[in-house]
Amino acid sequence: MPGQKVDKQELCDIANRLRIHSVTSTSAANSGHPTSCSSIAEIMSVLFFNTMRYKVSAPKDASNDRFVLSKGHAAPILYAAWAEAGLFPVAELQKLRKLGSDLEGHPTPRLNFIDVATGSLGQGLAVAAGMAYVGKNYDKASYRVYCLVGDGESAEGSIWESIYFASHNKLDNLCLIFDVNRLGQSEPTALGHDMEKYRKRLDAAGFHSIIVDGHDIDELVKAFHIAATTKDKPTALICKTFKGRNYPKIEDIENWHGKPLGAETERVLEHLRSLVKNHGPLMLKPQKPLKEDAPAVDITNIKLSSPPNYKLGESLATRQAYGNALVKIAQNNPRVIAMDGDMKNSTFAEKIKGVDAARYIECFIAEQNLVGVAIGATCRDRTVAFVSTFATFLTRAFDQIRMGAISQTNVNFVGSHCGVSIGEDGPSQMGLEDIAMFRSIPGSTIFYPADAVSCERAIELAANTKGITFTRVNRPNTNVIYANDHVFHIGKANIVRKTATDKVLLIGAGITLQEAITASTELAKAGINVRVLDLFTIKPIDKDAIIKNARECGGRIVVVEDHYPEGGIGEAVLSAVACERDIIVKMLAVRELPRSGPPLVLLDAFGISAKHICAAVQEACKM
Amino acid sequence: MPGQKVDKQELCDIANRLRIHSVTSTSAANSGHPTSCSSIAEIMSVLFFNTMRYKVSAPKDASNDRFVLSKGHAAPILYAAWAEAGLFPVAELQKLRKLGSDLEGHPTPRLNFIDVATGSLGQGLAVAAGMAYVGKNYDKASYRVYCLVGDGESAEGSIWESIYFASHNKLDNLCLIFDVNRLGQSEPTALGHDMEKYRKRLDAAGFHSIIVDGHDIDELVKAFHIAATTKDKPTALICKTFKGRNYPKIEDIENWHGKPLGAETERVLEHLRSLVKNHGPLMLKPQKPLKEDAPAVDITNIKLSSPPNYKLGESLATRQAYGNALVKIAQNNPRVIAMDGDMKNSTFAEKIKGVDAARYIECFIAEQNLVGVAIGATCRDRTVAFVSTFATFLTRAFDQIRMGAISQTNVNFVGSHCGVSIGEDGPSQMGLEDIAMFRSIPGSTIFYPADAVSCERAIELAANTKGITFTRVNRPNTNVIYANDHVFHIGKANIVRKTATDKVLLIGAGITLQEAITASTELAKAGINVRVLDLFTIKPIDKDAIIKNARECGGRIVVVEDHYPEGGIGEAVLSAVACERDIIVKMLAVRELPRSGPPLVLLDAFGISAKHICAAVQEACKM
Repeated sequence: MPGQKVDKQELCDIANRLRIHSVTSTSAANSGHPTSCSSIAEIMSVLFFNTMRYKVSAPKDASNDRFVLSKGHAAPILYAAWAEAGLFPVAELQKLRKLGSDLEGHPTPRLNFIDVATGSLGQGLAVAAGMAYVGKNYDKASYRVYCLVGDGESAEGSIWESIYFASHNKLDNLCLIFDVNRLGQSEPTALGHDMEKYRKRLDAAGFHSIIVDGHDIDELVKAFHIAATTKDKPTALICKTFKGRNYPKIEDIENWHGKPLGAETERVLEHLRSLVKNHGPLMLKPQKPLKEDAPAVDITNIKLSSPPNYKLGESLATRQAYGNALVKIAQNNPRVIAMDGDMKNSTFAEKIKGVDAARYIECFIAEQNLVGVAIGATCRDRTVAFVSTFATFLTRAFDQIRMGAISQTNVNFVGSHCGVSIGEDGPSQMGLEDIAMFRSIPGSTIFYPADAVSCERAIELAANTKGITFTRVNRPNTNVIYANDHVFHIGKANIVRKTATDKVLLIGAGITLQEAITASTELAKAGINVRVLDLFTIKPIDKDAIIKNARECGGRIVVVEDHYPEGGIGEAVLSAVACERDIIVKMLAVRELPRSGPPLVLLDAFGISAKHICAAVQEACKM
Repeated sequence: MPGQKVDKQELCDIANRLRIHSVTSTSAANSGHPTSCSSIAEIMSVLFFNTMRYKVSAPKDASNDRFVLSKGHAAPILYAAWAEAGLFPVAELQKLRKLGSDLEGHPTPRLNFIDVATGSLGQGLAVAAGMAYVGKNYDKASYRVYCLVGDGESAEGSIWESIYFASHNKLDNLCLIFDVNRLGQSEPTALGHDMEKYRKRLDAAGFHSIIVDGHDIDELVKAFHIAATTKDKPTALICKTFKGRNYPKIEDIENWHGKPLGAETERVLEHLRSLVKNHGPLMLKPQKPLKEDAPAVDITNIKLSSPPNYKLGESLATRQAYGNALVKIAQNNPRVIAMDGDMKNSTFAEKIKGVDAARYIECFIAEQNLVGVAIGATCRDRTVAFVSTFATFLTRAFDQIRMGAISQTNVNFVGSHCGVSIGEDGPSQMGLEDIAMFRSIPGSTIFYPADAVSCERAIELAANTKGITFTRVNRPNTNVIYANDHVFHIGKANIVRKTATDKVLLIGAGITLQEAITASTELAKAGINVRVLDLFTIKPIDKDAIIKNARECGGRIVVVEDHYPEGGIGEAVLSAVACERDIIVKMLAVRELPRSGPPLVLLDAFGISAKHICAAVQEACKM
């Protein structure tokens, strides 16, 4: 490098020391992936002790370079790199995979030097691209983002979504490292060591791609330098490596994936130790950031810039109210951003462009990358991100959302076009399993606003809520039922209709709450009073209100939802009353594969209209 | 083509007739995507009236060429093509999107000429690749598979997974058609009309790619012919087209996505009619298959080649039993196939290779394509496919599985490594939401075998079950508890422990059933008898057995599952007893994000071990 002295032997030594730690820690754990670590030892050594600029003592510092180990099963060598860098004692590495240690089988942010969990393959690059997007466009800072991807996981389409995204957005602060070690878990990869095929694919995608001997320190140092000085396009280092490198009789041999070395441990360690010249304290220290130019950011206490402003009885879709709320919180905080998968004119996410066009990120029709970019963008509390598309298309990214929870992400999801109430487009476009999906995410919060007022407040609350949030919004219009000054709380239901003689507790949400209100009027005419409850959040659910009101209504609940019954609102209510004797729950939900038709006709055809609610209440009264 | 006379004017006429139908039907429906139809009118005309060989009167004939419209929102022109080909009266097209008509907003197999539902973008090519794989490798027949993909949806990584799969498997009977019309829903696509970029990417992927003027009949005819004569690689026609082609003042203009032409309808129709020379009966008829060489296939009544052969108390993992069962049904029927995403040595799917290596399809680490290929492979009842990987990685393909249900697919899924009982690998590898996911799939059947005997029978039943099946198998060993001649039924629970004085009904599954049995022994020592029930299938659930046995146990149920509580077995049980007064359900499940540790230690740490079951039973006794 110009003016920079590279201590090649020391970097070689560090690589083999990292291998030693990878072998000893996995042998101590009697599980793990030492061969997957070995192929990237020189890459890790050069990155952590030559190329990357970061403060070891402050791994989350905003100006640090970022590193994402997409092939999370190589966790032991990542832990070893941080230990050798000085963050924690090397001896700690022997606690790998033990209960109580945060050095888990795959990296999670329980460790202060991990931004995002990895381990489900093919997800790291999207996250890295999100970090790089923020670095380049919002932070406008010098830090760079490095992402190490295994060749096996490069078969994941999500990787290619992210490659195209990074290229389209000219993320020259992003460096992709492909570890082409030729061997997958159960057989060689499709491309083996055909380095040219990788290069052709990355070139075609618009990357600056460099084929590198991934075990050659000089080549790596040089390639990383070229990457750092390449403008207007991201760079990929396509590293030819060998799985189990420097493990004699194991290197480049099949059937060693995900296995500790067992009886071979000592033999291999002896060889590795013989390769290390400097067994004493390291002579190299990681380099600190050249510039501390990432700005301070405050994403706390985000408010609507003005309160909801609707008229009772006014009719508009909650997806429109989402757009309105997004504008208001974007006006309130410059770090509120939105992204979508080419549905922004249906979800109303595009309205944020009216506040600041730069705060909208178009991810095109690639939902996996969309979610990953959001997880990356929100890392280290750099932004508050809202991700929208049709609710059902979020199922495309279930694995990313699941990993997001393990990553402790705060991404906010908004799913529109839920249920049969979307009408003519038919079942492929109807979100009927989205509540089930988001309920299964640990620590998630699920808002299902009934009207425009509650929707604006849901979005305001979501912006300030830790963990994953999901707000379900409707395509058709619903009537405004709350006053503009109504105060909403997470986990707190609202009673919408009530008399002293209610026979049944009726629970609806969104479009079906409107049907429930209609039904309550009809039923009252027939002399049957019902109480109508709006949960506001499906998770957490207001267990106390449900039980108390159900008891006051003779222990009878009717739940109606525009969703399949499994995992939906009905089952959430059932869970709340599971340990109560004397409460019954009748569930109205979409119980068969729906089809195209007009929205209101479909509500009726699939059993969740006011008419069906009235019938269910009358049946419940007999129970 | 050599010796073939192409009636260019007639094909042009047909293209414009298809446009006319697309406009009139969407205008009648007052919704739909006429501009997305228009860009592919010449492609559809050439495919259906020149290139493809099929029997109009028998759309499902095994020897027909296949067509998959991946951009399902262009459904109106697909319906129009079949109507013009003579399958049904053109007048029917005006019922588009009406309730009661099978001409829905997006195609589904309710129509006899549709193999698979499309409409969630980026999924058609995987399905087409599955069909082509079967055609080339199992049917060894002449039929070809055509798949039309929109440029917008080519941003989906799943498309690239399938492109790499098709190339790796040299599917020269597959022809991909890219409709590059430049415009997405909410803005232009990332690549616009940069045809060379598409070509570079497809060339790099190993396709034979041809850039074509997608509105030029001659070019299309020629390119399809070249595709049909290209060996050892699939061909891609990269068609430059214009959205809204031949709709004056609408063609190639933004903000016309997904909109009927409304007030512009008559003006556009007038223009389109002026382009048509032959308004009378068509002079061209679709060509029949050259050879009827797709063999007859019988996939009914599949049996284990020999009954389960285990000893009571013997200990082995149900994933191993899956491998054993797969071998036995593969021996019984030559059309049983298996596929996996590079986990075959963990899921034991690789065992089928011992029967016939050709009946295993390696899909590498690309689960979305894996699922799509299976859906394609099982189409028209050509194969019985088993798809396996870690249970949690099936979340990667939730959208494909969801669409599979709309496609009426019979694919069988097997998910291994579920729950915290996998141990040290940590939360990223633990299936804890897979039951919630598969329960939400309409018409699904979920097997959760407790031991090797029931697992073999579950796989045998799955092979013969219509709709999507999911079998959840454990990583750790479980004891054999059923006799080899035990008869299992879908929707029928088995009582595993019972006395006349049972106080609580205890429901476990898989690993937690073993814990429940252990707990029952402990509890009996303490003088508390409990009944232990094994559901066998979580869906359909044996409601009658649950209610009857719960009543006999004082209305007390304890459910224990290695899964998150939301959407899991506990909620399935709750749904079964929802309308019963006097039954309470205590749910033991994994209630926080788990971490790495030894399997049995984790069962205890996360509240689902025998110890916790004993405590829950004692609490339940007080309720």
